Amino acid sequence: MKESMIWEGPYGKMILSDNDISDLISELRHLVFAEFFDHVIHEPEKRLSSIESKVEKMIENALTFGANGDNDKDKKTAKDLAKEFTGQIPVIKELLESDVKAAYDGDSAAKSYQEIIIAYPGLFAICVHRFSHLLYELGVPILPRVMSEYAHSKTGIDIHPGATIGRSFFIDHGTGVVIGETTEIGDNVQVYQGVTLGALSPRQGQRLAGRKRHPTVESDVTIYANATVLGGDTVIREGSVIPGNATIYKTLKGECKVEGCSSKHICMVK
Amino acid sequence: MKESMIWEGPYGKMILSDNDISDLISELRHLVFAEFFDHVIHEPEKRLSSIESKVEKMIENALTFGANGDNDKDKKTAKDLAKEFTGQIPVIKELLESDVKAAYDGDSAAKSYQEIIIAYPGLFAICVHRFSHLLYELGVPILPRVMSEYAHSKTGIDIHPGATIGRSFFIDHGTGVVIGETTEIGDNVQVYQGVTLGALSPRQGQRLAGRKRHPTVESDVTIYANATVLGGDTVIREGSVIPGNATIYKTLKGECKVEGCSSKHICMVK
Amino acid sequence: MKESMIWEGPYGKMILSDNDISDLISELRHLVFAEFFDHVIHEPEKRLSSIESKVEKMIENALTFGANGDNDKDKKTAKDLAKEFTGQIPVIKELLESDVKAAYDGDSAAKSYQEIIIAYPGLFAICVHRFSHLLYELGVPILPRVMSEYAHSKTGIDIHPGATIGRSFFIDHGTGVVIGETTEIGDNVQVYQGVTLGALSPRQGQRLAGRKRHPTVESDVTIYANATVLGGDTVIREGSVIPGNATIYKTLKGECKVEGCSSKHICMVK
Repeated sequence: MKESMIWEGPYGKMILSDNDISDLISELRHLVFAEFFDHVIHEPEKRLSSIESKVEKMIENALTFGANGDNDKDKKTAKDLAKEFTGQIPVIKELLESDVKAAYDGDSAAKSYQEIIIAYPGLFAICVHRFSHLLYELGVPILPRVMSEYAHSKTGIDIHPGATIGRSFFIDHGTGVVIGETTEIGDNVQVYQGVTLGALSPRQGQRLAGRKRHPTVESDVTIYANATVLGGDTVIREGSVIPGNATIYKTLKGECKVEGCSSKHICMVK
Repeated sequence: MKESMIWEGPYGKMILSDNDISDLISELRHLVFAEFFDHVIHEPEKRLSSIESKVEKMIENALTFGANGDNDKDKKTAKDLAKEFTGQIPVIKELLESDVKAAYDGDSAAKSYQEIIIAYPGLFAICVHRFSHLLYELGVPILPRVMSEYAHSKTGIDIHPGATIGRSFFIDHGTGVVIGETTEIGDNVQVYQGVTLGALSPRQGQRLAGRKRHPTVESDVTIYANATVLGGDTVIREGSVIPGNATIYKTLKGECKVEGCSSKHICMVK
Repeated sequence: MKESMIWEGPYGKMILSDNDISDLISELRHLVFAEFFDHVIHEPEKRLSSIESKVEKMIENALTFGANGDNDKDKKTAKDLAKEFTGQIPVIKELLESDVKAAYDGDSAAKSYQEIIIAYPGLFAICVHRFSHLLYELGVPILPRVMSEYAHSKTGIDIHPGATIGRSFFIDHGTGVVIGETTEIGDNVQVYQGVTLGALSPRQGQRLAGRKRHPTVESDVTIYANATVLGGDTVIREGSVIPGNATIYKTLKGECKVEGCSSKHICMVK
């Protein structure tokens, strides 16, 4: 989405340019995945401080939009926030390594870890998400959303920066996936194209802002293509397999009662 | 989609370049949304006449493809058509303001009008549509379709330039949305990702060209994720809420009879 | 997807750049579609040998990832493989002409062949696929997948390079379409947005690599929006029409038994 670019013309001041976003993501990706390609990062401290100063400038711009969340966080400067951001990169690197391995283990068509890093849209989306979620948690306004929308435009995968996602997460194909702001996802979850983890709030809009509106998905769950799971009280229990095109509005118990489920083989709801 | 770019190489004449399209859309977006950012457009007349001359050149190129629609319109020059186009910009501006507000009111996760303009793919798509629909109505060939396909490639939202859409329209997330050429949509409608408003015409192709083949959606309707609504005789009545993953081929009356609807809460068909 | 770009920075060696991919696809598109625009290719031999040397360099880079498939093919040089590639271009050109015509005949909204070539994402995706499939068949690693992911990012249509697809193939709208590695598709098939031809292999991942895991779709089949067809033993019989949002896990016989099918009109399973 080159939307942000519109502010770069002769009549508009620049806020966040699309090029800044894509450059930052490219640098972060190289930093966290270099080892998979036997690349050695020379002078890693220098790399990190270069990233930190770029992020600082972007946060500075973003803060002109006002804070995103509670007010205590306002008091931190762009410099502080950028420092916290880069401090967390090793944690994100380790999580992303678990995601690369989950994709390889989960997809029979995968030929190598390198192929997954270079050509899998799901990995691109979760990579951008893990960084944008960190900025969201730090209370940075608008920048996390612009980053996640950048990934959405490239991949068709729309993960709100607010969503919390565990280790070893794998989205295959991914076009049409939507994961809402207050979604919580456990470890080792697989999600296929067209899956919505969304809100069940017809026409209530801003009245529900801040509340948990999106599902909880426990660990080891598989959700097949085009399933729609809605509502803040809905919990998909550990180990469940949700069939393709299912529509789910409440927590499932016991045997499979998922509408559209025609096969035991792919519908085991514990 | 850089498809149009192929004609720019040393062996092909230029028709419509992708850069022309993206520049035009950026300029139009800035013009209509500047007030939301407290930007003042200096010398607005000059801006408009600059846009008008760009549009004129693009229409001139497009007219080499022959007219799109009836023959009377052929007689207008590119200059006339570009003038009519810019004359309608204030009307479109007002409609788009209603769309920005509808998105803010409709999405609990929205933080500000500015965020919606910068980062919501649904707003980007309806913005491009309102301009491409105007060119379609003026009988300009191919250019409207190239514009709408540009938005489709960026957002995953495919709105045919022929579709007529009322005020305060909100598409959330949007990946996979398809709205066909003869669709009619009322005011204050909300549509979620993966929704198809399509044709029910297996293998009849060109025999049905020109006929109404796509649904009518009345005002205040909400259509949830991945619902498929097909056919030129299908009418979704005012105030209806269509559940996720529903498939609808005819006009619904009385109580909910939508296949896949498992909850009164989100399926009220009036 | 600019993922591949990350390796171009000062700290990474270049492998496959996004620009190389988009340039190659643009050149190939111009070569095969020029006649539809009454363009004459001057010195076609020179064009072909220019393409051949570009492809050779890309294959050379790709071969550093190791071979994709059996070992005999390893022994061919990048030069040999590039020669075989360009030798097949006339065959692909003829197939793509059948695809353009199928799109025109299949879509009531299509105004001309030229419009389809310039602005239809489905044609873009099948065009890239026919070339990437050829490279896949030649045993070239990673490059075919990067090409198909380039098309996926632009169009939302994800066709694995391994899929085999007959003549006169038409994908309309296309966002969310997924066609898996071992899918086999006959002639004159129409597929709409959101259709998955996928694997039915929860959590078996690499254990199933190399086996037929995706459906067979016979000739003259139409598959409507958001239908999900899964499994390597599943065959959609000649002439079938699969309704929107259907979920299919096994071969269908006799009368329609497709879940979600509410109308004879669009559900004829032979």
